[in-house]
Amino acid sequence: MDLSSRLLENAVHEVSQLPGIGKRTALRLVLHLLRQPKQQTESLSGALLALRQEIKYCKNCHNISDLEICGICTNPKRDKGLVCVVEDIRDVMAIESTAQYRGLYHVLGGKISPIDGVGPHDLTIARLVAKVKQDEVNEVIFALSPTIEGDTTNFYIFKQLEGLDVKTSTIARGISVGDELEYADEITLGRSILNRVPFENSLKSS
Amino acid sequence: MDLSSRLLENAVHEVSQLPGIGKRTALRLVLHLLRQPKQQTESLSGALLALRQEIKYCKNCHNISDLEICGICTNPKRDKGLVCVVEDIRDVMAIESTAQYRGLYHVLGGKISPIDGVGPHDLTIARLVAKVKQDEVNEVIFALSPTIEGDTTNFYIFKQLEGLDVKTSTIARGISVGDELEYADEITLGRSILNRVPFENSLKSS
Repeated sequence: MDLSSRLLENAVHEVSQLPGIGKRTALRLVLHLLRQPKQQTESLSGALLALRQEIKYCKNCHNISDLEICGICTNPKRDKGLVCVVEDIRDVMAIESTAQYRGLYHVLGGKISPIDGVGPHDLTIARLVAKVKQDEVNEVIFALSPTIEGDTTNFYIFKQLEGLDVKTSTIARGISVGDELEYADEITLGRSILNRVPFENSLKSS
Repeated sequence: MDLSSRLLENAVHEVSQLPGIGKRTALRLVLHLLRQPKQQTESLSGALLALRQEIKYCKNCHNISDLEICGICTNPKRDKGLVCVVEDIRDVMAIESTAQYRGLYHVLGGKISPIDGVGPHDLTIARLVAKVKQDEVNEVIFALSPTIEGDTTNFYIFKQLEGLDVKTSTIARGISVGDELEYADEITLGRSILNRVPFENSLKSS
C-alpha cells in the first residue's frame, strides 16, 4: 500500500502493531481520526501515554492501580483472610463483575509455561507465599484457567504452601449455567458429577 | 465494567471511540500496550498526534500530503491534462495501487447526500470547475461509487462542466475480473453488454 504520506504511513504502521489489527483496519481507524476534531486524537494519545507512564501495580496484590495500593486491598469491607489467585488483571475484572467475591486477589502475572519460557520465578509466587506466612490469610483460592499450564501452576503453588497454616481451594469446574448437558465435554461433565453439591447450595448461588 | 483504575478506564474509553472497537476490544488493546515496552505506546501516541497536527491536504487536488502540494501533483511524469474525480483519499490509494493511471486526482471529500446534510458546497466541486477553467485539463474522469449519491454527484459536476472545453468520462461498470457471470446482478450485466468493448482492448488491459 503506497500511502503517499510519511506521516500517514507511520501512523498506520504503529496502529497495525496492535493485536488483531491489520494494515487495512489501521488505515480505516487513522483516516477516521483525521475526519474527527483534532481534540479526539489528542485525548486518545494523551490517555494512552498517561496510562502507560503513570499506571502502578498494587504492591500488595499486583493488580493494576492508580495508587501504590489498589482500591480492593484498601477497602475495609473486604475479607483480608481470603486470597484469590488469578493469572492477570482481566481475571480480577471478570470475578469483580460477578459481585460474588468479597476477599482480596493475588495477580500472578502469568502461568508457569516452560514452552513460553515462563518459570515460577517470573511470577509473583514468592510474594504470595511470603504474604501467607506473614498475614492473616486463612484461605487461598486458585482461580487459574483449567489448562495444563494452569494446573501446573496451581500444583506448584499448592506445594509451596504445604505445611503452612492455610486452607487451599479451587473454583468449581462444572457445566456452565445455560449450557446443554449433551454438548458438554466428558471431563467437565465427569467432574461435575464427582463434585456434586447439595441441592440447597445451588439455590443460594444466584 | 469496573476497571478499578481511572487511567485504565480513560484509556479504554478513548480507544472504544474508534469505529468498530467496543469496550472489550479496547480493553484487550490497552492491556496489550501495558505488557509491551513503554516505547511502543510512546511511538503510537506520537505518530497519531504528529499525523493529526501536521498532515496537510494538497492545495491542488485535496489529497492527503505531507507538503503543500502532494507528490502526485508535483510529479512531472504525470499527465496534467487528465483529472480523476474521487470521493476520498482511500479511492486515490485504491486507484494508485492498480498502477494503471498516470493522471492527476481531484478529491471531493464526500458525495452529495441530502440525507447526511452534504450539499455541493460542502465538497470541493467549485475548486474543480475553477481548475478546469484555468488549466490545461483535457478530460475529467468520474470515479465515484455507483450509488444514488455517487450518480447525483457525477451528474451535478457534469452539469457544472457543461459548455467548458473538456471531455468527461466515467470508469467502466461491468463484471469484475474473476466473477461468475451467473451471479452478477442484472444492472451490471446489462450495462456490461451495452458498453461492450472491442476484444483487442481487453487484451491490453492487464
